[in-house]
Amino acid sequence: MFTILPIKGYIDQIDGFYCDGISAGLKANNALDLGFIYSDTSCEVEALFTKNKFQAAPLKHYQNYEKDFKTNFVLINSKNANAMTGKEGLENIDKIFSNLNFELLNPIMSSTGVIGSQLPIEKIIDGVKSFELASKNGENLSKAIMTTDAYAKTCLYEVKLENGTSFKIGAVAKGAGMINPNLATMLCFICTDANIPKKDMQEALKVNTHTTFNAISVDGDTSTNDTVLLLSNGKSNAYDKEAFFEALRLVMHDIAMLIVADGEGAKKAVAFEVRGAKDEKEAQLAAKALSNSLLVKTALFGEDPNFGRIASTIGASGIDVDEEKLVISYENIIVYNKGEIVFSKEVEEKAAKVLQKDKFKIICDIGLGNASFIAYACDLGYKYVEINADYRT
Amino acid sequence: MFTILPIKGYIDQIDGFYCDGISAGLKANNALDLGFIYSDTSCEVEALFTKNKFQAAPLKHYQNYEKDFKTNFVLINSKNANAMTGKEGLENIDKIFSNLNFELLNPIMSSTGVIGSQLPIEKIIDGVKSFELASKNGENLSKAIMTTDAYAKTCLYEVKLENGTSFKIGAVAKGAGMINPNLATMLCFICTDANIPKKDMQEALKVNTHTTFNAISVDGDTSTNDTVLLLSNGKSNAYDKEAFFEALRLVMHDIAMLIVADGEGAKKAVAFEVRGAKDEKEAQLAAKALSNSLLVKTALFGEDPNFGRIASTIGASGIDVDEEKLVISYENIIVYNKGEIVFSKEVEEKAAKVLQKDKFKIICDIGLGNASFIAYACDLGYKYVEINADYRT
Repeated sequence: MFTILPIKGYIDQIDGFYCDGISAGLKANNALDLGFIYSDTSCEVEALFTKNKFQAAPLKHYQNYEKDFKTNFVLINSKNANAMTGKEGLENIDKIFSNLNFELLNPIMSSTGVIGSQLPIEKIIDGVKSFELASKNGENLSKAIMTTDAYAKTCLYEVKLENGTSFKIGAVAKGAGMINPNLATMLCFICTDANIPKKDMQEALKVNTHTTFNAISVDGDTSTNDTVLLLSNGKSNAYDKEAFFEALRLVMHDIAMLIVADGEGAKKAVAFEVRGAKDEKEAQLAAKALSNSLLVKTALFGEDPNFGRIASTIGASGIDVDEEKLVISYENIIVYNKGEIVFSKEVEEKAAKVLQKDKFKIICDIGLGNASFIAYACDLGYKYVEINADYRT
Repeated sequence: MFTILPIKGYIDQIDGFYCDGISAGLKANNALDLGFIYSDTSCEVEALFTKNKFQAAPLKHYQNYEKDFKTNFVLINSKNANAMTGKEGLENIDKIFSNLNFELLNPIMSSTGVIGSQLPIEKIIDGVKSFELASKNGENLSKAIMTTDAYAKTCLYEVKLENGTSFKIGAVAKGAGMINPNLATMLCFICTDANIPKKDMQEALKVNTHTTFNAISVDGDTSTNDTVLLLSNGKSNAYDKEAFFEALRLVMHDIAMLIVADGEGAKKAVAFEVRGAKDEKEAQLAAKALSNSLLVKTALFGEDPNFGRIASTIGASGIDVDEEKLVISYENIIVYNKGEIVFSKEVEEKAAKVLQKDKFKIICDIGLGNASFIAYACDLGYKYVEINADYRT
């Protein structure tokens, strides 16, 4: 038995972790753009990275460390992704870390922003020199890592174990565009003082990625910089595998939902539940096809219960289907029932009401098996176009 | 030796073919919504259909005919796709064709519009009864089959063979949204009086689909109704395989380009040429990934030479890549050169000028082989959202 309670505050509430965000002049108007996470005890670290073959320089830098390295510092900048920047991009990270005025253990860098220009390293070095490692300013960090995010993304939990011990786990993340099911495209830093054995860390991340970060979609694009870091300093001396996995799942689910609800310009967070598929792979394929379909997402934006687009997308997803077995519902309002069009004026009005909500579920029962998968997406409207037509300026 | 000349007019200029379009009351405001193609001699026919597993009723109806059936009539309606309409949808087509006031040979139906409601068959039967089979009104037909199309899509060629004989080939098509590389989602009716042997027809369609209809993308969605029909009445007694295949390629390319340039709300038609890939499959995968990427297409809309998104999309496409070998250019303006960022202010301005054009090419040389593929797409802007957020009303 264990209890997991959401608590107020940022990752700096976790024993031994410190963080802050400052303005280093990368963004205009003195906006916060450079942040750090510091642990006063060395941390075990595990990472998940993008499947994009053009991995950004910070990802290569991380992977140049020896296996099972420990760290006590993560430096994060926004506005510049340090991607497609070649050897110079990688060397720039070393230059930054060799110019610090404090000693660090295997510092990690993480970047987000525009692809294809070199980091302004003087600005970053000056910025890092002004850091105060003893800061506990999670709010500033959460803002410094934002790009097109409309709001900061953080969460924090306390986990109480049966033996009276407890640990905390929390995260700070960014991500709004370039969100794709193949590891949600974003940066997410998860910190914990749980005394988790190193061997459990990778498993814990992998088990939970499938139904959280890999289940969300804003626009189907996979960035060069996607990173999930799990840092554990073990300071609590508390650990229980089941409790930790569940707490990590909650953290990753919370962040995934915050990201999808902040899909660029999004007004709605929609869960696409595919049930009754032949196997989980097919359920996932169909659910993700729905979460990625432009026609489905623009219809959601228009609050139009255009279930034909949902059917068409499932039919095009490649999974086994049968028109006579499919059932489509908006929440509990059935709009298509096993070959029968039940879309009366009354049903349409009820379905339209569901679509007016900020958050709802669309359920497609394939009727051919028992497997299910839930994918999450947002609607797609004018604001997405506005943000992305003019991102660099 | 042969010559292929574009000529003015519609498919009704081809010997033995007649067509017209009328208003049957499916669309509002007496807009044209029902049309036909009639041949006074029976035609050989070949078809390509959508890969969507929920094939619309007209596609099933066609496939219920015996192999190698001949026909002399195609009935086409817009506004209602007759898809997801079950047995009733299929029976409705038979009802329409059993209520005609003239004799037809294996009539074909083709529908486009909203998915998931039954055809208003009384209106359609009344409309068909008013048809005059001897009409030569290609313009009305081209308008009657439009949905969100901004303009009608037709082309016509005359092919003169060395032996002094000649034939004509032309097409009328619709398609603007739901355009996807997996057989461009659309209706396209190609008519010819070439005396093509039945055995060449399927081959001619398949050979040319790969680089035309399968190379274009508006939004990555595959509809339930995609159809390409090739009707040949043999009346010219002229045929040459090489000439016919080339003329058909021109027809299919013309229509594909008309469709992509009319992508819902599009202002630009862009060719994505991937060169230097390891094999053609990889070239195609990368080119199609570019033509489907929302981030790439919104940047095109914003006329922003954001080559980072192009690199990122190629990296995420799954093909083999090497940052040190990739070259990206807008027309002849190189913006990324084998690991080196050559994106100076001057280069950026030149690239931005390319993006201001209506039509241009983006070239990505992977640098790992000799295979290439060109995919075609349009930009994606506010108008796409406007059209699709509110399509049914």
